[in-house]
Amino acid sequence: MRFELTHEFLEVLRQKVAEQDASWVQEHVLELHYADIAEIIDKLNNEEAKFIYFLVEEELQADILMELDEDVRDRFLSSLSTKEIADQLENLDSDDAADILGELSEDKIQEVISQMEDDEAAEDIVDLLNYHEDTAGGLMQKEFFQAEVDWTVMRALVELRKQAEDVEKVYNIFVVNDSDQLLGVLSLKRLLFANTKTKIANLFQSKNIISVNTNDSAEQVAKVMEKYDLVSVPVVDYQNKLVGRITIDDVVGYIKEEADKDFQLATGISDPVEPDASIWRISYARLPWLVIGMMGGIFGAKVISGFEESIARIPALAFFIPLITAMGGNVGVQSSAIVVQSLARGDKDLGKIMPKLFREALVGLLNGLLLAALIFGIAYFFENAQLGFVVSISLFTVILCAAIFGTLIPLLLNKYNIDPALATGPFITTLSDVAGLFIYFSIGLLLYG
Amino acid sequence: MRFELTHEFLEVLRQKVAEQDASWVQEHVLELHYADIAEIIDKLNNEEAKFIYFLVEEELQADILMELDEDVRDRFLSSLSTKEIADQLENLDSDDAADILGELSEDKIQEVISQMEDDEAAEDIVDLLNYHEDTAGGLMQKEFFQAEVDWTVMRALVELRKQAEDVEKVYNIFVVNDSDQLLGVLSLKRLLFANTKTKIANLFQSKNIISVNTNDSAEQVAKVMEKYDLVSVPVVDYQNKLVGRITIDDVVGYIKEEADKDFQLATGISDPVEPDASIWRISYARLPWLVIGMMGGIFGAKVISGFEESIARIPALAFFIPLITAMGGNVGVQSSAIVVQSLARGDKDLGKIMPKLFREALVGLLNGLLLAALIFGIAYFFENAQLGFVVSISLFTVILCAAIFGTLIPLLLNKYNIDPALATGPFITTLSDVAGLFIYFSIGLLLYG
Repeated sequence: MRFELTHEFLEVLRQKVAEQDASWVQEHVLELHYADIAEIIDKLNNEEAKFIYFLVEEELQADILMELDEDVRDRFLSSLSTKEIADQLENLDSDDAADILGELSEDKIQEVISQMEDDEAAEDIVDLLNYHEDTAGGLMQKEFFQAEVDWTVMRALVELRKQAEDVEKVYNIFVVNDSDQLLGVLSLKRLLFANTKTKIANLFQSKNIISVNTNDSAEQVAKVMEKYDLVSVPVVDYQNKLVGRITIDDVVGYIKEEADKDFQLATGISDPVEPDASIWRISYARLPWLVIGMMGGIFGAKVISGFEESIARIPALAFFIPLITAMGGNVGVQSSAIVVQSLARGDKDLGKIMPKLFREALVGLLNGLLLAALIFGIAYFFENAQLGFVVSISLFTVILCAAIFGTLIPLLLNKYNIDPALATGPFITTLSDVAGLFIYFSIGLLLYG
Repeated sequence: MRFELTHEFLEVLRQKVAEQDASWVQEHVLELHYADIAEIIDKLNNEEAKFIYFLVEEELQADILMELDEDVRDRFLSSLSTKEIADQLENLDSDDAADILGELSEDKIQEVISQMEDDEAAEDIVDLLNYHEDTAGGLMQKEFFQAEVDWTVMRALVELRKQAEDVEKVYNIFVVNDSDQLLGVLSLKRLLFANTKTKIANLFQSKNIISVNTNDSAEQVAKVMEKYDLVSVPVVDYQNKLVGRITIDDVVGYIKEEADKDFQLATGISDPVEPDASIWRISYARLPWLVIGMMGGIFGAKVISGFEESIARIPALAFFIPLITAMGGNVGVQSSAIVVQSLARGDKDLGKIMPKLFREALVGLLNGLLLAALIFGIAYFFENAQLGFVVSISLFTVILCAAIFGTLIPLLLNKYNIDPALATGPFITTLSDVAGLFIYFSIGLLLYG
């Protein structure tokens, strides 16, 4: 039932496209779901892509365009004339059209817009370009169903039929007064079963209506839609005038990007990079974290070099350097990850910092005690007791410090509006390496005299 | 417009609840959106929660119940009698009811079901309990709109009106033949504007209908809904009979959980833990990774102890231990994270392993060369040239190896159906620590003679 793209299919397709075999493409490609056609085009070069794309019926072209990989879409669009781009934009939802237009240069934007034939659509798009892309205004689309509160169901059906062509996905109808101010929401289901003479005013839901403001951040929009289980949310301006709608699919994309970003920060990839980007770009994207790590390593070397004499005397001290740094890093990352997750879930209550810090310290204490006892046991039976004592006391101290710093740093970053997920990556491991080494050798020096 | 829960509000509320002031609760709490009421109940104890919950009108109780934190819900339900639980289940969608029931003990499940008054609802729930929770069958609900292909629009409207009470959110209508086999989909919008005498057969969409099978994994369902931009997807059995529907809100939850899981594995939290769990549970959840890290540290100590003589002779060798281990770890985590992300996006094509490995090796080569040159420069000017030479050659080798292992290990794990995200956490840092130390000291011994 579902299409699976295979190498064999792609090879045959390429051959047929090279032969300009439109009837083969018609039969084997154009019959597919637009998302599958987009998946195929993702694998083709511009010439091949164009051949297939312009065989597709116009209405589906827009859907395919939006399903393409961003890189492929940019490449594909840059191979089109401004007139061809303008034609494509007319078939897109306004939010998608604005997104695509926003990626072009200023000059090209003007040129494309002047070539659009549907003035109203052009106006909507230009309007959307004014909003920052990470706000509700930047996410919203201008296509939605809207009914006035004093209409009858019959009137609404007639008016909505006019709007129906533009609005692809309908979940509910926004109800407004005659100044376009949002009053409430009417579900399509309710409308479907209503008597045609009933007034909208007697049908619609006006209590606890959830809307977002054009200036709300994309993050806020995602949180609101998730909390209130919405598939679409109306967007209003400062006068409560209905100006747009955001649907769940736009927000799902945003939620995934945010989760990806945290993962990338935690694993030290500073810039989201497609796996098929150039070697140079990949290398470049990863360098910042590696350089931070190296600076940490050089600091660490400086710390250890201060204890050169002790090492010459007791080389066994060097054995446990990796243990101390690794454990400090692991505990620091764990603690910061917990805080980052709890912040991401919306616990922004700074009055709760102290209890959190206290809890993490307790967890650190517990795990530190346990692991310190374990390492002491191992060192006692297999190495020597004095070294075991130094290592276990240091390990305990390092774990406790790492737990506290791991909690404190993301909270501080968050307070100063820096993404706290920064603290789950190489940043915290580097810091805990340097601190851990200092603690370890100091205790070593103290106990070995 | 939107409710914000404050400490002050909560204090007043507690006071009023203690006074059993139902009219205050009516005015200040029950007027709120159910998601906000749930947020409030999340902060209360069972006694307080019950007082508010049973003041809420019955229809909203179910919505509130599903919005509660899982911990709070479990605690709250365990304070209810089986009869009270049975009453709550009757108001829930079948998928939610099955989820809640699934968390109870076998005995209690039987008891609750026997107390349900609506036999049909009870049957639906029992049926859903048969499916594994991570499959389409486990995610689906039994409430959906269904129309037979040979009905007229008029007949459909009459029949759908009967179904309407049960189906809370309607996005589209599934069209079946007289053996309940899925034939296609009809949008509510289309039905709304159709002539009442038209046959469903002439209205509905039968081409490229996307459905999932009861046995498809939750992961597959999420991918299908995302790829094809669906807000609801029909679920069929092996005979293509329509048995349920999955809506986007269930899948958004799943997508978020998956993303959280990758982040947790990368940061070494092996078990998803709520930030307010007990100290013991938190400590316990983090121990496995820490013990792995410690084993790695002990192995590392063993490796270094093999070079005890060299260290006694040239203590400066110890200075750069943290640099070597940290860089190996960072590069390994970066490489594995890239692979994990690309696997999570659905690139499961194992024919592409070799090119990927090759690319990562090239990136490692490039960054390794650059950083090795940098550290050599630093060591040359500030320390001594010979040590700089040892460190830079080791660093280069370690980075290259870490890049290759970081790519290979998640690919191997994936091949054997183990979650590849395991490889982005302490696992890979521990491995690269041990390997890195061995490389470093071997090269040191070789070059220092």
